Amino acid sequence: MVCTVSNQIETIGQGDIRDISACAREAVSDSGCSLGIATVAVVGSTAGITTIEFEPGSVVDFNRLLEQLVPRDGAYQHHERWGDDNGSSHVRAALIGPSLTVPFTNSTLLLGTWQQIVLVECDTRPRRREVIVQIIGE
Amino acid sequence: MVCTVSNQIETIGQGDIRDISACAREAVSDSGCSLGIATVAVVGSTAGITTIEFEPGSVVDFNRLLEQLVPRDGAYQHHERWGDDNGSSHVRAALIGPSLTVPFTNSTLLLGTWQQIVLVECDTRPRRREVIVQIIGE
Amino acid sequence: MVCTVSNQIETIGQGDIRDISACAREAVSDSGCSLGIATVAVVGSTAGITTIEFEPGSVVDFNRLLEQLVPRDGAYQHHERWGDDNGSSHVRAALIGPSLTVPFTNSTLLLGTWQQIVLVECDTRPRRREVIVQIIGE
Repeated sequence: MVCTVSNQIETIGQGDIRDISACAREAVSDSGCSLGIATVAVVGSTAGITTIEFEPGSVVDFNRLLEQLVPRDGAYQHHERWGDDNGSSHVRAALIGPSLTVPFTNSTLLLGTWQQIVLVECDTRPRRREVIVQIIGE
Repeated sequence: MVCTVSNQIETIGQGDIRDISACAREAVSDSGCSLGIATVAVVGSTAGITTIEFEPGSVVDFNRLLEQLVPRDGAYQHHERWGDDNGSSHVRAALIGPSLTVPFTNSTLLLGTWQQIVLVECDTRPRRREVIVQIIGE
Repeated sequence: MVCTVSNQIETIGQGDIRDISACAREAVSDSGCSLGIATVAVVGSTAGITTIEFEPGSVVDFNRLLEQLVPRDGAYQHHERWGDDNGSSHVRAALIGPSLTVPFTNSTLLLGTWQQIVLVECDTRPRRREVIVQIIGE
């Protein structure tokens, strides 16, 4: 059985990391499946999906790494070609990746207690994000 | 239903980033499924799969990050053990990851307009790559 | 058909990288499926899953990158909030990602000869890890 849920999430721009575990849990629950996988994917090339312990300290630490590796105000060829200012967004998103697959059993996602699924906004401006949760299971 | 398509892609070596979205779209189309997931995977430990806005600027920017983090001409223990010169390739590929799962509905992959699935060649020599697209859906 | 296998793996702490390909192969074999995907996921926010050529040189090279990007003894806000010493673990794990999906055909995972699925322990202390392999196929 395949089941798709689309979620709209408003972000405030680069560095906004959102806990979207509830979206995935609800999709599992709504699917009626007890066993399977949830694929969580963000549509677009300037955001990523991963897991982290979602507490303010770790979120700051992860954002600091991204800024150190791919500085927002760095020089990017993407800027020169398009007049955009979000070259850092594309590079960060490609590094993190746009999707994540999480198994579930007994209708429960197999995540740790302090492990949350997060949307990592990389774009330099606020965005309305579409996050898809696709359930495949039985 | 499960459906597998294998694609052969010739690359010119490290830094060659190829738009393989069409491979994934064709696999979805050929499967006859309207709803499901496409898992795109490269066979081998010196290439990766991710998404990016596939335009020359972003491609240069992403390659520059990889070179900065994992320089091609750096010193790698892999070289000393095997007499190889592709230690950077293994580290880059492990960082990017070898596969990606993308949901689709109405036989259409849920990607942004400027979001392409790419094969990131990390090896230091040209390679013939096998890229698998596995469709699971209904 | 969906099939789940849980594996317990004892690690010795940060930098311990374990070849868990056999766990995935056995799960495919036990499922009786010939065609499908294996999702390999570690439960918890301080470990990751990827593939690498599993030989001591590449393992050292990959660990060196992680230490360079996210030093174990760096200053992390996670430490200040929780009195923990594993801020680097959370950031490394978020960067690598907690799961990986690998297609298989003829009951054989589509991996390269020198490509192994690995558990990357990022925590600063030994852990007993739960690694889930979920098979979806036919």
